[in-house]
Amino acid sequence: MKLNERGLLVVLSGPSGVGKGTVRKALFEMEGHDLVYSISMTTRPPREGEIDGDDYYFVSKEEFERRIKEDAFLEWAQFVGHYYGTPKDKVEEQLKQGHEVVLEIEVQGALQVRERMSDAVFVFIAPPNKETLYRRLLRRGTESNETIQKRMDKAEREFPLAHKYDYIVVNDEVRNAADRILAIIRAEHARTERSIYKYKEIMEVDES
Amino acid sequence: MKLNERGLLVVLSGPSGVGKGTVRKALFEMEGHDLVYSISMTTRPPREGEIDGDDYYFVSKEEFERRIKEDAFLEWAQFVGHYYGTPKDKVEEQLKQGHEVVLEIEVQGALQVRERMSDAVFVFIAPPNKETLYRRLLRRGTESNETIQKRMDKAEREFPLAHKYDYIVVNDEVRNAADRILAIIRAEHARTERSIYKYKEIMEVDES
Repeated sequence: MKLNERGLLVVLSGPSGVGKGTVRKALFEMEGHDLVYSISMTTRPPREGEIDGDDYYFVSKEEFERRIKEDAFLEWAQFVGHYYGTPKDKVEEQLKQGHEVVLEIEVQGALQVRERMSDAVFVFIAPPNKETLYRRLLRRGTESNETIQKRMDKAEREFPLAHKYDYIVVNDEVRNAADRILAIIRAEHARTERSIYKYKEIMEVDES
Repeated sequence: MKLNERGLLVVLSGPSGVGKGTVRKALFEMEGHDLVYSISMTTRPPREGEIDGDDYYFVSKEEFERRIKEDAFLEWAQFVGHYYGTPKDKVEEQLKQGHEVVLEIEVQGALQVRERMSDAVFVFIAPPNKETLYRRLLRRGTESNETIQKRMDKAEREFPLAHKYDYIVVNDEVRNAADRILAIIRAEHARTERSIYKYKEIMEVDES
């Protein structure tokens, strides 16, 4: 029996190149969970085959900016001329239905979410060590040396932000990391600050 | 990779009759853990077949009282003329070796441990509801009505203490409860306050 029936908002984040996407995919492939992935909203035009409401919610620049003003995003950012953001109402709807909603986002975005959703669970995905991360960045053969250097610098600035998260999960082996995140989700539902209200209701106990 | 290599002290507790012992046994029968059970010290004479250092550490009343004075117990109590306690040094030794040490103790004992080992993990095992607990107590056919009534009164006083624990795990189904406790142990190793020191060492980052 779950004492807390509302879903959890689970924020997966970590430095550039740590393998957030791979861990998230492995997590969704595992059994015994009720995870949904939060679909982002963007002003970037759909690429061939991309479906609105499936890959992204595609909106106009005007609509996105109107939503920023309405504080309708859990986090948003601008990349190469386009907006990307996480719509608050969609996330809230899924949480109410009891789903665990997973966001896989950049460190800066995660810190924005922290301010808006203090009861979310923040997981920092860390590399086993610096060398491993740098080697992973270098192996992405398609990028210029300059881009790689920029990513390394960004990672270097992100390493010291781990302490702002609830959990640090080392991505030594993708399955291990995903498995540990699943354990975190199960454990968080049982945490006293989340489960005490329901417990008091069931056990008919008052404050003490 | 575990960021925190020291074992965890896991305190399983909860009201009389909730099934602490059954959950603990199920937990130890599960795979994929490195749990050890803390052996209590007592002044009660060994029963037939009981082995010193296996079932209990059997000591004299004088020795037990000397140890109380030396603050050598994580918790201790007296039942029907005999002392029972958890020896601090034995627990510490196992934790250093990286084992997770499990204590299965009464609510009052758990609160004593809380004062001495603030970094332990405290799990309150709760019944699905009051009726289930009372029915379990009644089903223990060997006890007098008076004893059952006393246990019910004790449980009633213990229900409101759940908020002093880190986690509340409902014993609706023994395997479920054990499984959830295993998830809690895995998750706790990744908690930032436990893992940040090791992380900083590995990543060579300073305060931020």
